[in-house]
Amino acid sequence: MRSVSIIGIGCTKFGEHWEKSFRQLIAEAGIEAILSAGVEGKDIEALYGGSMASGRFIGQEHIGALIADQLGLNPIAATRVENACASGGTALRSGYMAIKSGEYDVVAVGGVEKMTDVGVEQAAIALGGAGDQETELFHGASFPALYALMARAHMTEFGTTEEQMAMCSVQAHKNGMLNPKSQFHREITVEDVMRSSYIASPLKLLDCSPITDGAAAVILCETEKAKKICEQPIEIIASTQASDTLALASRKSLTEMAATKKAALDAYKQAGIEAKDIDVVELHDCFSIANILAIEGLEFFKKGKGGKAVEEGKTALNSEIPVNPSGGLKCGHPVGATGIKQAVEITEQLMGKANKRQVKDAKIGMAHNVGGSGATAIVHILRKA
Amino acid sequence: MRSVSIIGIGCTKFGEHWEKSFRQLIAEAGIEAILSAGVEGKDIEALYGGSMASGRFIGQEHIGALIADQLGLNPIAATRVENACASGGTALRSGYMAIKSGEYDVVAVGGVEKMTDVGVEQAAIALGGAGDQETELFHGASFPALYALMARAHMTEFGTTEEQMAMCSVQAHKNGMLNPKSQFHREITVEDVMRSSYIASPLKLLDCSPITDGAAAVILCETEKAKKICEQPIEIIASTQASDTLALASRKSLTEMAATKKAALDAYKQAGIEAKDIDVVELHDCFSIANILAIEGLEFFKKGKGGKAVEEGKTALNSEIPVNPSGGLKCGHPVGATGIKQAVEITEQLMGKANKRQVKDAKIGMAHNVGGSGATAIVHILRKA
Repeated sequence: MRSVSIIGIGCTKFGEHWEKSFRQLIAEAGIEAILSAGVEGKDIEALYGGSMASGRFIGQEHIGALIADQLGLNPIAATRVENACASGGTALRSGYMAIKSGEYDVVAVGGVEKMTDVGVEQAAIALGGAGDQETELFHGASFPALYALMARAHMTEFGTTEEQMAMCSVQAHKNGMLNPKSQFHREITVEDVMRSSYIASPLKLLDCSPITDGAAAVILCETEKAKKICEQPIEIIASTQASDTLALASRKSLTEMAATKKAALDAYKQAGIEAKDIDVVELHDCFSIANILAIEGLEFFKKGKGGKAVEEGKTALNSEIPVNPSGGLKCGHPVGATGIKQAVEITEQLMGKANKRQVKDAKIGMAHNVGGSGATAIVHILRKA
Repeated sequence: MRSVSIIGIGCTKFGEHWEKSFRQLIAEAGIEAILSAGVEGKDIEALYGGSMASGRFIGQEHIGALIADQLGLNPIAATRVENACASGGTALRSGYMAIKSGEYDVVAVGGVEKMTDVGVEQAAIALGGAGDQETELFHGASFPALYALMARAHMTEFGTTEEQMAMCSVQAHKNGMLNPKSQFHREITVEDVMRSSYIASPLKLLDCSPITDGAAAVILCETEKAKKICEQPIEIIASTQASDTLALASRKSLTEMAATKKAALDAYKQAGIEAKDIDVVELHDCFSIANILAIEGLEFFKKGKGGKAVEEGKTALNSEIPVNPSGGLKCGHPVGATGIKQAVEITEQLMGKANKRQVKDAKIGMAHNVGGSGATAIVHILRKA
């Protein structure tokens, strides 16, 4: 069976890019990834691009062809994949399978979103297309509202507190301070979060990830070949994906992300490891409650114990399980780019190149990307090849 | 190397479905495909759905998860792919590679578009997202305008006539009469086409494919397994994809589709055959000139000779190369579904189940799907396994 490794990475600064377009952002990340891989454009045989709602955000579909064109990679096969906020993770998994299939040896995968060119209301409507348009968004259930329902259920069922959720954001901003590409470089306190405006009770402004422009890219290579052209290839030792109902109302439970759970269990099995073997994780914290749901669903902590674990500092840098050293989605969430940016961060961590936010002796890392309110989950586990 | 075959097919009627929604259409096609494959939902391990602009047409992204949900297939991996009008072909190729990779044995692939829920102007803008939004659509270059430029160049360079283009539409409608799922059941004459309103000169209304609602699905299976569960598996003996510049203005030639040419040559090589070995083809005739460009690009006729070949009836049913027995895109083009519907038609032809439009002794068939004005091309060659 062929194995797949990451040999190059690139990522733009996350933020409000008023002077850079969608195509400039993905070109910047893509070129950085190609240069860092030590390959040339002509070595790349196919391309996958993740973008959630480019049609709504910039009036442009056909993103795969656009990226190939921008990077001068024609006539290679170029494809856009879309699984809402898990579009980046999907691009990574698509590239992984394309190499495993034997069709290609070297594949570029990228993710990009330019979200600030439309107003906040239009952005919220576009993002609402990740849930069930007919039974949720049409009736006013925006994404903060859906996650607020999950937060309220978690509070009721397990006694999770608004302060514990606030601590997720505090920790994210603390890590973001150490990441030059973070959208925010400002420490916040639990009081700051508690005093911020309610968006959808119990979630407040500082419980939510922001609207962000940004792009990220990685170069994948068949592992035997990777070892010949790269000093430190990072091998993908598990790639898994699962789905759940699109609408929250159809779920058996509001306090468990079934797709995350299944993708995680499948990934541990595929890699032949357990949750405790993961040294660092980038997980999908689009809202503070999503952080808690993820650390439980990924089995780092028992169901219902996530809030307490965050409160006790067990997810801080160089603690029991370092969560989101990059600052996570809380410090920038250009939806289509997020899943790739997670892989970029884990790759840097395993290469020992994460500078001030380096997790000591990180040998095995995980990236966890969620689409919508949990209808898609994608997990990758990485290790030095 | 693992081989992949089609074991089940499904397709809705193409047309204006005022009483059926996006999700009802894909469920109808999906269930028909599963039933015809003789498998059960639980046998399906992953799903790829092609849809071009669901965000713009129905306010819904995250189409992979939606389809899995509608068909009761959770928690399988479900992914949307988008390559403009080649989204269906991309879904087929994605499913093909997923099985080749060894990750799955049985994969469902579908395509769907619900285009009539927005007005014609909004639909034209959404479709314009398949080209270069910044340098084309923004300045008013709609899709008929882009293909009109290609038509005018072909007329100037090779003497192709408006009447020859009209004959493409006449032939399409003639075939469509034999297909119960065609959007149109009305024979037209060259005079009808010539008298229809100009949309973008030299293209007239009857040179253009319509706005259509519809869905199609196929079930893919690893070939050895397919032979055990299906009487007549249809093997995919080539699957290829290529890209070209997004904008027409960046191309070297307006009279040759470079991506089609490359995908076709790669496909013939992969299958170990030549153009003359193809018994029946479903090709991407979004406009009459696209038909002529395709029969030249796929090497059925020499460059510049396509118009003459159509005029001489060489692309009619049971002639030199039977083109679009289904009626093609001219008889219905729900963009995301088109690439899958082409595979459905070729599968029926090779199974000998195409009834009145059956091509005699069809042994090898081709499906050719184009995205935008040619920035993506995908070719599949099928044969009885």
